[in-house]
Amino acid sequence: MIDKITQASLLYDFYGQLLTRRKQQVMELYHEENLSLAEIADEFGISRAAVHDSLKSAERSLAEYEEKLGLVARFLKSGEAFRKIDRMLDDLREQYAGDPALTGALAEIQAVISDLEED
Amino acid sequence: MIDKITQASLLYDFYGQLLTRRKQQVMELYHEENLSLAEIADEFGISRAAVHDSLKSAERSLAEYEEKLGLVARFLKSGEAFRKIDRMLDDLREQYAGDPALTGALAEIQAVISDLEED
Repeated sequence: MIDKITQASLLYDFYGQLLTRRKQQVMELYHEENLSLAEIADEFGISRAAVHDSLKSAERSLAEYEEKLGLVARFLKSGEAFRKIDRMLDDLREQYAGDPALTGALAEIQAVISDLEED
Repeated sequence: MIDKITQASLLYDFYGQLLTRRKQQVMELYHEENLSLAEIADEFGISRAAVHDSLKSAERSLAEYEEKLGLVARFLKSGEAFRKIDRMLDDLREQYAGDPALTGALAEIQAVISDLEED
């Protein structure tokens, strides 16, 4: 189960570029720099309530993008599949430890998957 | 190299849900049902020029989403990696055809990848 903070951060990673620049700034100061609403309000010379509204509106937009595009759900699902494949390949490498040609080829496949996950 | 029509269709698959309902309809009639601009204009009781503008505007929006999110590029890249892994597993299954436990396990990994690609 993925916690709420990770979920929020994934939503921002995927869809943050679709938010207005100001909303991106507020989200980053709040979620990444961990500033308080009052500190962010100071930074922009706006009210604490305006910062709060901006955050809520940004979160709603991110949730709507996910509802329409479902990329975070897809990303989490493919991550699970990658880990499953990685474990299966690990198991085979253990079972066939005496065959370096095979274990080498299996490790090569793991490297391709690991590259994919880093994108 | 991916052709322009496939590219347009992928962009629509990924980001179509972010377009207005009307733009979605125009895109579908034009790109999927292959209606002419004049036929679409008739269908909605608007001018041929309005249909043209709507299409161009939809295409611009899709291109902008891709510029910001890059999901089609990522999708194409992961597709290539999946095909590469699949070929590597095929090769191993051929080389180790005499070991059904191994070839079975390799086929299982291919099935997990194939499930992923269908999403």
